[in-house]
Amino acid sequence: MPSPTSEKRPLLPAIESPRDLDGLSLADLERLAGEMRDTLCNLVEARSAHFASNLGVVELCLALHTTFDFLHDRLIWDTGHQIYPHKLITGRYDEFPSIRTKGGLMGYPNPEESPYDLFVTGHAGASVSTAAGLASGDAALRDHERRWSVAVIGDGAFPSGVVYEALNNIKRDGKRLLVILNDNKMSICPRVGGVADYLDRLRMNPAYSGLKEEVARVLSKVPLLGDPAERMLAQLKEAAKAGLHGGMFFEDLGMRYLGPIDGHNIKLLRKYLKMVKAGEGPVLLHVVTEKGHGFQPAADDPVTFHAPPVIQRDGADRGRVVSMKKSGGRTYTHVASDAVHDAMSANLRVTVMTAAMCQGNKLERVRDDFPGRFFDTGICEAHTVAFAAGQAKVGMRPIVDIYSTFLQRSFDHIFQEVALQNLPVTFLLDRGGLSGPDGPTHHGVFDLGYLRVFPNMVVMAPGDSADLPAMLRFALEHDSPCAIRYPKAAAIEVPGDRTPIELGRAEVLRDGPDGAILSGGAMLVDCLAAADRLKADEGLELTVVNARFVKPLDADTILPILDRSPWVVTVEEAALAGGFGSAVLEAAADAGLRCPPIRRLGIPDHYVEHGDRDELLADLGIDAAGIAKACRELAGCRAANKAG
Amino acid sequence: MPSPTSEKRPLLPAIESPRDLDGLSLADLERLAGEMRDTLCNLVEARSAHFASNLGVVELCLALHTTFDFLHDRLIWDTGHQIYPHKLITGRYDEFPSIRTKGGLMGYPNPEESPYDLFVTGHAGASVSTAAGLASGDAALRDHERRWSVAVIGDGAFPSGVVYEALNNIKRDGKRLLVILNDNKMSICPRVGGVADYLDRLRMNPAYSGLKEEVARVLSKVPLLGDPAERMLAQLKEAAKAGLHGGMFFEDLGMRYLGPIDGHNIKLLRKYLKMVKAGEGPVLLHVVTEKGHGFQPAADDPVTFHAPPVIQRDGADRGRVVSMKKSGGRTYTHVASDAVHDAMSANLRVTVMTAAMCQGNKLERVRDDFPGRFFDTGICEAHTVAFAAGQAKVGMRPIVDIYSTFLQRSFDHIFQEVALQNLPVTFLLDRGGLSGPDGPTHHGVFDLGYLRVFPNMVVMAPGDSADLPAMLRFALEHDSPCAIRYPKAAAIEVPGDRTPIELGRAEVLRDGPDGAILSGGAMLVDCLAAADRLKADEGLELTVVNARFVKPLDADTILPILDRSPWVVTVEEAALAGGFGSAVLEAAADAGLRCPPIRRLGIPDHYVEHGDRDELLADLGIDAAGIAKACRELAGCRAANKAG
Repeated sequence: MPSPTSEKRPLLPAIESPRDLDGLSLADLERLAGEMRDTLCNLVEARSAHFASNLGVVELCLALHTTFDFLHDRLIWDTGHQIYPHKLITGRYDEFPSIRTKGGLMGYPNPEESPYDLFVTGHAGASVSTAAGLASGDAALRDHERRWSVAVIGDGAFPSGVVYEALNNIKRDGKRLLVILNDNKMSICPRVGGVADYLDRLRMNPAYSGLKEEVARVLSKVPLLGDPAERMLAQLKEAAKAGLHGGMFFEDLGMRYLGPIDGHNIKLLRKYLKMVKAGEGPVLLHVVTEKGHGFQPAADDPVTFHAPPVIQRDGADRGRVVSMKKSGGRTYTHVASDAVHDAMSANLRVTVMTAAMCQGNKLERVRDDFPGRFFDTGICEAHTVAFAAGQAKVGMRPIVDIYSTFLQRSFDHIFQEVALQNLPVTFLLDRGGLSGPDGPTHHGVFDLGYLRVFPNMVVMAPGDSADLPAMLRFALEHDSPCAIRYPKAAAIEVPGDRTPIELGRAEVLRDGPDGAILSGGAMLVDCLAAADRLKADEGLELTVVNARFVKPLDADTILPILDRSPWVVTVEEAALAGGFGSAVLEAAADAGLRCPPIRRLGIPDHYVEHGDRDELLADLGIDAAGIAKACRELAGCRAANKAG
Repeated sequence: MPSPTSEKRPLLPAIESPRDLDGLSLADLERLAGEMRDTLCNLVEARSAHFASNLGVVELCLALHTTFDFLHDRLIWDTGHQIYPHKLITGRYDEFPSIRTKGGLMGYPNPEESPYDLFVTGHAGASVSTAAGLASGDAALRDHERRWSVAVIGDGAFPSGVVYEALNNIKRDGKRLLVILNDNKMSICPRVGGVADYLDRLRMNPAYSGLKEEVARVLSKVPLLGDPAERMLAQLKEAAKAGLHGGMFFEDLGMRYLGPIDGHNIKLLRKYLKMVKAGEGPVLLHVVTEKGHGFQPAADDPVTFHAPPVIQRDGADRGRVVSMKKSGGRTYTHVASDAVHDAMSANLRVTVMTAAMCQGNKLERVRDDFPGRFFDTGICEAHTVAFAAGQAKVGMRPIVDIYSTFLQRSFDHIFQEVALQNLPVTFLLDRGGLSGPDGPTHHGVFDLGYLRVFPNMVVMAPGDSADLPAMLRFALEHDSPCAIRYPKAAAIEVPGDRTPIELGRAEVLRDGPDGAILSGGAMLVDCLAAADRLKADEGLELTVVNARFVKPLDADTILPILDRSPWVVTVEEAALAGGFGSAVLEAAADAGLRCPPIRRLGIPDHYVEHGDRDELLADLGIDAAGIAKACRELAGCRAANKAG
C-alpha cells in the first residue's frame, strides 16, 4: 500500500473520463493505481462491498483504458463485481461512495449509469459470447471503424459451460475479439477443477515467451528430408512446436493464445494490448493477477476480503486492518447450513453440492467435516444438477445448494435430468427473494414461477426458520425432487405450537372471519404482524396461513378459506407472474370457486434495483406495513360495498 | 447392406437380453449387426424415425454389451436417439415396430421400459455429468463392486457447455468413468465450430498410436546434460511428448484420451473397451463411426436420413431406396422460415441463429441465400442467446430460432443477457406445444410459463398461420425482447378480415353473450370450430378471442369479456401452471374483478407421453371436441345454477 500521496495533489479526483489518462506518464499511472486502491479501502471502511478482486484489476483497468477507447471499442467485465476501478475512472468518482446503496451506483456494470458499461453482468461466463456478438455486429455494420470487443473474464467464471460454447463458435466472429483471462487463482473460494489445474500448469512456465522464440528459431533450421525417419523428425518438429506452445487448449478451439503475463505491470500489459490491437483476433490474453493486490491483508486472505464486512484500518499504518465488523446474527443461510450438517451426520447417503459458493452458503463446516460428500463444482450449475441426478439415480440423496438466481443456469437440467426422471434431488435455493445491495442480477425472484411448471417438483418455502430444517428432513425422505427456497434474511422463528411438515399441507396460524392472509414463504412474520396490528387497530379477526408448499398447494386448507373469507391477500417475496398467488388463483379456478377479491402482494413486473432489502420490500409494499395497508383497503372496500 | 440371411436362422429374434450375446462368435456378432440394420430399415419403411445415427452405432452397441453388463454397470446414450440398436438387444425386439407410436416404445431411452435404460435423454450433452454422478454414487455406496459408468455422446452433443463443465469436474469422480465420443462428423446437419475442427485434426492422424510409441522410444534415449542448451533440449523432449499426444485438450482437463479408433470394428472396439475396464478412469475413448453406415443411401446423405420420411426399398436390391414419402403440407415451421427469409431480404440488420437445427427449422434456403447472416452455432443454446444479445446491443436485429424445449437450455441468458438489458432479440420458439412422437423431452409446453416471469419480455402466440409473419414483423420493429411460440402443426389460416398486430392487443373474432373462449395460440381454429358446433347444436352465441399476446395481456379487451360472460374457457397448448390461463386469472384478480367460472384447458401437471400430436391433444381435451365439451359443461352448470 503506498503511503497517502499528501505531498502531491491527488490525480484521481481530476479523472473525469478515461481520456484524462492519456497525458499521464507511467509513473503517474502507477501513482493513480495507488490512489484507486486507497479509494477502494475507504469504501470498505464505510460498508461491505466487493473488494479483493477489484484491488487485483487496477493496473489491468488502467492499461485497457489507455490502450483502447471504450466509447468506440467495447468492454465487458465478467463477472461485473470487478468493475469498481473502471467506475472510478469513467466519470463516477464523486458518486463512488454511494455504491451498493439504494439510488446510488450499482456494484456491477450498469448501462444506465455510463456509456462505458455495456452489460449488467452479475451471473458469470456470458461475456465471451456477448463480446463475440458485439464484434460480429460491428463487423457487419461498421467494419471500417475497426472496433475491438474485449471481454475480461475471471478464472472463476471461465469454467462456465457457456464459455466453452462461445470458444467453440469464436473463430467465425472473432476478427477483432480479445478475451482477457484474469487469472487470480480464485473464484470466491479457491477455485477447483480441470480448467484450474490447466491454468496452473500454464502459469508454471515463467520462461514461456523467450523459450518459445528460441526453440522456434532452432527448429526452423532442421532440414526436411525424404526418408521415413526424417518424415518422423518433421512430425516431431511440428509436435514440439505445439508442445512448447502453451495454451494449446485454446488454440485447439481456434484462438491465438498469449501469456501468461504479469497483470500488475502496466507497461507490459500495454505492450501486449497494443500488439493485439495491431493484429487480428480472436486472441486470448492470459493475465495473472493477485486477488487483493496492493493491500496486504486482502492479498493474504482473499476469501475473507472478497466482500468483507466493514473494516477499520490502522490510523498510522494504512496497510493494516485493526478491526472488522462482526457480521450480523443468524440467517436462514446459517439455519440451512446447520440442517445440511445434521442431515449428513445422520445419513451417509446425503451429499451436498455448491457451485463455487461455499462461503456464501456458509458450508465451510460441512466441507471440513464431510470432505468426501461435499462437492464444490465451480461455477458450473448445469453440471452440478445433472451430476446430482446421477448420484440420486444410484441411491444417494444429493442436496444442491445454489442461490435461487444462479440455479436459473441449470433450468433445463432441473427439467430433464431431475424432474422428468422424478429423481430425489433436493434443491436449497438460498437468496430466494431480494438479495439487497447486489441488485437485479442477484435477486432470486423467479424461482417459484420457474420451478412450479415442472411436474413431479415439490416446491416449498419455509414460513420461518423453524420450517427450514424440518422441510429439509422431509425432502430427504421424499422420493421426488424437492425445492426449498428461503430469503437472504435474519432467521426468525414464529413462536407457539407448530404442526409438522407434511406433503402439501399448509398451517393455519390464526383463524378469523374478517379476511385472510396467505403467506407463501418467510414473509409469514410480517403477515402475522399485520394481522396483529389490524386486530389492535381495527378489531379485525384475520386468518393467517403459512402455506409452506407452493406446489402441491394445500387446496384442502386454502379453498375453504377462500370460500368463506370476504377478501384474501397473498404474500410472497417472488415475482407475481406465475408465482404463489397465481397458484392460489389457479386452484380456485380449477375448483370452480367463485372467489372473493384476492390481492396478490409480491414482486411486480419490473426489475428491482439494488439497495437494502428491507427498504426495497417496504417500497414494494411487501412488509408488515404494506400487508396491513392492503388488508385495510380490502376491508374498506368491503365496508364500502356493504354500505353501497 | 448384407443380403438377407435367409440361408441361416436369424439371430436377432432370439436375443432376449445382452447376455444372449455372450455365446456368439465375432462372425455371429457381425451377422447380427446386419440383421439389426435390416430391422432398422424395415422400421423406416413403416414410419419416420431416427435412422442414420442408429445405423452408425450398431457395432459400438454390440461391443459395449459384450464387454460390460449394464445391469451392473451403467450406460447412457446421449442424445438418446441413438438408442435403437440398444433397444433391439435388451428385450424389446418384439415391441420394436411400435416405437414412436402412442403406447409403444419411446424413441429415446426410457427407464420405465427397461432396467437397461437409465435416463430419458432427448436434450443433448448432460450424459457426462450424469455418468459422473452415477460413478460417484457407486464409488460411495458400493465401490467394491467395481461398476463402470459409460456415457456414449455424439460429437454433435459434445460442444454443449454442460459437457465442458463436466470435464472440468471429472477428475474427482471418474475413477470408473468412460466417456465414449461417438464421432460421426455430424450433428443433424454437418456440425460446426472449434471442437469439430479439433476432432477433425485428431482424426487425421491414422498412425497415431504407432508413431507415439516410436517417438517416445527415441526420445527416451536423449541424454540429459547440464548446460542451458541441453536443458532446452530436455524441455523440447517433454514438449514433443506432449505435442505428439493427441487429445491434449482432454488430457489438459484431466482425462486419459484413447483413440481415434474405428467404430465399426467390433474386435477393435472390444479390445479397447476391455483395456479401459481393466484400468482406471476417467477415460475418453474417441470412436469414429459413419452416420448411416451399412445402408448406402443413408451413408451418402446422412442429413436426409437422420430421420427420413417413410422410405421404400427396392425389392431385389435391399440396399437401394426406390421412393420416399413426400413430407406433408405446409407447417408453421415453413411459415416461420419464409417470414425469416422475407425479413432478412428487407433488412440487412436482421440475422438468424439456429442451434444445429437448420433442417428442423427449415432454414436451408435462408442459410444458402444469406450465409453471412445465418449462424448455426451447434448445440450451444446458451451461447446463442448471449451472442444474439451482443449483436442486438450494437444495432443488429437477431432472430433466435430454437425449439421451445431446447431454448430451456438458455433460460438464464434470456434473463440476464436479453430481458434484463431489454435488448431487441426475437425468439422463434418452434414446437411450442406437443411435439408428437418424440415425447416428453421434446414437448415444448413450459415456455409460456418460463418466459412470462421476465419483465420486458413480450410473449406472443399466433392464433393462426397469418399471425406468425405479422408477429415477426412486429417483433423486428419493437425495441424489447419478443418471443413468438407456435406449434409443430399444419399451417392453418383463419378466414375473414383480421386486425393488424399491435402490442398487447387481442383480436375478437366472435362476439356473443352466452360464454367466452379465450385462445392463447394456435388452438384458435379449434376454439372457432367448437363455437360453431355449439351454435349449431345448442344455439349458443359465444365470444371467441385470439389473445395473440400472452404478455402483455390485453386486459382492456379481456376483462370486460370476463365481466359480462357467464363463463369463460381459456385454451392453450402449454402447461397450465403459470401459463396463459393463469395470466388471465392474474389480470382478473389484479383488476379486482369478481370472475365468472373460468375453465382452463391446457397441459396438466404430468409429463405427456409420445404419440401422434392430434391423438395426444384429444386425450387431453385440447381440441375442438374437448373445448366444446368444456363449454357445454359450463353452460349446463349455468343452466343448472339458474334453475337452482
